[in-house]
Amino acid sequence: QGTRDHPPAQAALRERLLSAVVSCFKRHGAAAIDTPVLELRETLVGKYGEGTKLIYELQDQGGELLALRYDLTVPFARYLAMNKITNMKRYHVAKVYRRDNPAMTRGRYREFYQCDFDIAGQFDPMIPDAECLKIVHEILSDLQLGDFVIKVNHRQILNGVFAICGVPESKFIPACSTVDKLDKVPWEEVRSEMVGEKGLSPEAADRIGEYVQLHGGLELIERLLQDPKLSQNKLAKEGLGDMKLLFEYLTLFGITGKISFDLSLARGLDYYTGVIFEAVLLQQENQHVEEPVSVGSVAGGGRYDGLVGMFDPKGRKVPCVGVSIGVERIFSILEQRLEASGEKLRTTETQVLVATPQKHLLAARLKLISELWGAGIKAEMLYKKDPKLLKQLQYCEDTGIPLAAIVGEQELADGVVKLRDIATREEVRM
Amino acid sequence: QGTRDHPPAQAALRERLLSAVVSCFKRHGAAAIDTPVLELRETLVGKYGEGTKLIYELQDQGGELLALRYDLTVPFARYLAMNKITNMKRYHVAKVYRRDNPAMTRGRYREFYQCDFDIAGQFDPMIPDAECLKIVHEILSDLQLGDFVIKVNHRQILNGVFAICGVPESKFIPACSTVDKLDKVPWEEVRSEMVGEKGLSPEAADRIGEYVQLHGGLELIERLLQDPKLSQNKLAKEGLGDMKLLFEYLTLFGITGKISFDLSLARGLDYYTGVIFEAVLLQQENQHVEEPVSVGSVAGGGRYDGLVGMFDPKGRKVPCVGVSIGVERIFSILEQRLEASGEKLRTTETQVLVATPQKHLLAARLKLISELWGAGIKAEMLYKKDPKLLKQLQYCEDTGIPLAAIVGEQELADGVVKLRDIATREEVRM
Repeated sequence: QGTRDHPPAQAALRERLLSAVVSCFKRHGAAAIDTPVLELRETLVGKYGEGTKLIYELQDQGGELLALRYDLTVPFARYLAMNKITNMKRYHVAKVYRRDNPAMTRGRYREFYQCDFDIAGQFDPMIPDAECLKIVHEILSDLQLGDFVIKVNHRQILNGVFAICGVPESKFIPACSTVDKLDKVPWEEVRSEMVGEKGLSPEAADRIGEYVQLHGGLELIERLLQDPKLSQNKLAKEGLGDMKLLFEYLTLFGITGKISFDLSLARGLDYYTGVIFEAVLLQQENQHVEEPVSVGSVAGGGRYDGLVGMFDPKGRKVPCVGVSIGVERIFSILEQRLEASGEKLRTTETQVLVATPQKHLLAARLKLISELWGAGIKAEMLYKKDPKLLKQLQYCEDTGIPLAAIVGEQELADGVVKLRDIATREEVRM
Repeated sequence: QGTRDHPPAQAALRERLLSAVVSCFKRHGAAAIDTPVLELRETLVGKYGEGTKLIYELQDQGGELLALRYDLTVPFARYLAMNKITNMKRYHVAKVYRRDNPAMTRGRYREFYQCDFDIAGQFDPMIPDAECLKIVHEILSDLQLGDFVIKVNHRQILNGVFAICGVPESKFIPACSTVDKLDKVPWEEVRSEMVGEKGLSPEAADRIGEYVQLHGGLELIERLLQDPKLSQNKLAKEGLGDMKLLFEYLTLFGITGKISFDLSLARGLDYYTGVIFEAVLLQQENQHVEEPVSVGSVAGGGRYDGLVGMFDPKGRKVPCVGVSIGVERIFSILEQRLEASGEKLRTTETQVLVATPQKHLLAARLKLISELWGAGIKAEMLYKKDPKLLKQLQYCEDTGIPLAAIVGEQELADGVVKLRDIATREEVRM
């Protein structure tokens, strides 16, 4: 349940998508690493907030207690700490596992790919953070997924808002996860969850509401920096300072047009400590409606400066920032688009089919195909002793092989091959 | 235990190896498929003989009882049956899991990659089988792993041998797994296991010994076809007929020089039904010793005509033959070779570092690098506001970046970039 086989057409489309993502990661100088699918259970517990209950555990068959990885970020942090690495730019494309309720049509599975890019190391503020946003911008533009917006916020700004609204520090994380729902439900519902389930005072909730419904650009950052209450809060002030610097760099990258500073963005995971972001596709569902409709998050990430320290015996921190591309959701979109276009994706790369027009020519085919393989040419033949020529040509048409190399008795006698272009039916002897 | 992280240098070497293997599979017209790491437990049990006890099971957390895949062949057969596919040529490169005693220096892990190529379908005999052997030959030659031999045998010949030597059919599989040890221990030990543990009569064991120590080429096939007893056994006769045809095709492929018909080859897995094969590297440990020493199996496979039928509710069979490349062992060899050569493998593909020679030029770097990324050029910069030029050039040397694009105050004023070749220190303004 919640997993699936990828038949060739899907595997080919997925390879195309993943290679677009990976080529962007490589363009930004990232190295690949690989970590096991299995992690010690103790590595994963306490890192994912409510997600922890969705971790797949292995049966105790003797030896270590194991679990399947839940994401690629925690294994990366564990890897850095274990190897005492303080500086690294890496990407990782691999499957992760969550015992969630699958919603396969919307691209939510129990086994799914993540494509992560992360920068670890102590650097000058906001330069790596800006690059992560640039990467999201490049990938979503390259894939031509239509209009999108990248929402950006900062955990310290959120915490500052909670502090000045009178939320006790112990309730920052629950308040955060409630705010995170603002992209799906209206403020009234969020407010009532805050007051009801999370036990905030109605006054605090109302004050929070005034802030978290704000979104904008540089001008909003400037306005909040002047906000009499917020500018007095140390956390918020630092966060707003980061945000201003970030926007400066994003302006140099020329991508602020797709960036929205959105105070409702909170992100579910516990481990974020600074800038957080999430990209959503916008869909003009109805051309007459002005406000575009969001079709959900296709990339997300943020800064997590404390995670590596959790795995170091001496608690030594390695600041990190990273981005995860939501390839499953993007894959669903590309798949639907391909289906709608009627285009048939080739599942093999075969360049030529070695064919014979008469019987008793298997030996000639085997010799020729062996020569072609030796020359690095992608070649196939039918696994029949005496296939009909029509069947062989039909196979080319069905599978998209562009050429047939035909050896008949005449060709053998003349020491040539007849090369046929399947589409045009032109033939040349060579 | 038995798993490992791949740091960038290893991941880069592995990528190189896997892409060599995959490009061979694609040259032979295979399509990619992907199946989940998780399978239902019931799918895996009873398919691997003694291997079954090495299967990783997931904890029962409610819902289906799951296990981690043990190989890629059983999931492929399950996939074919589930989707009623009777005809397919596919490859699959992915990790599999075995709760084995790890021997990491020899490339034996609990999590490891398999690279499989399989041909499913009802075809004329031995054509797909010959292609599988051709693929092994191509891959081992391409990778320049030194001399190798591909041992070939046939389950029906083995069963025929057992039959004419007086082994009851119920003991064919145990006898087979004992014969399989002949590549590691001398005949005397194998004989005593047959008589002791497996309960064969000493006479039967001696008669088996006369056959399973034979190896050779076409002439051995011909000789056995004339063998008064063996040629009377239906199974053996069919198997020898297959083998003769196989050698005919392998001769046309020009690869019989590396093929040895070896009656001691048995292969551990239960599901093989026809041709079986295994490639071993030969190492001239001492130039004065004539007999080369085997350093172990690096590829193996065979025909399994009954496996798909085990997953079909009506037991419909789909004949299959396939090969699995032992990339972990090959990886160990390549790794040791790389280490010995002192060559440093680049872990990134970065073409140019964007650098500045003076302070206060971060904006210029951000603008230039953004332009380079936009043009598809792989570019990096240091994440510092004001890095020293020397540090920037040092970074190029450390990571193998061949070029530095330098923008200083003068270049900015002139509207040019100074491109520096790191190795030659030549500079051009452009």
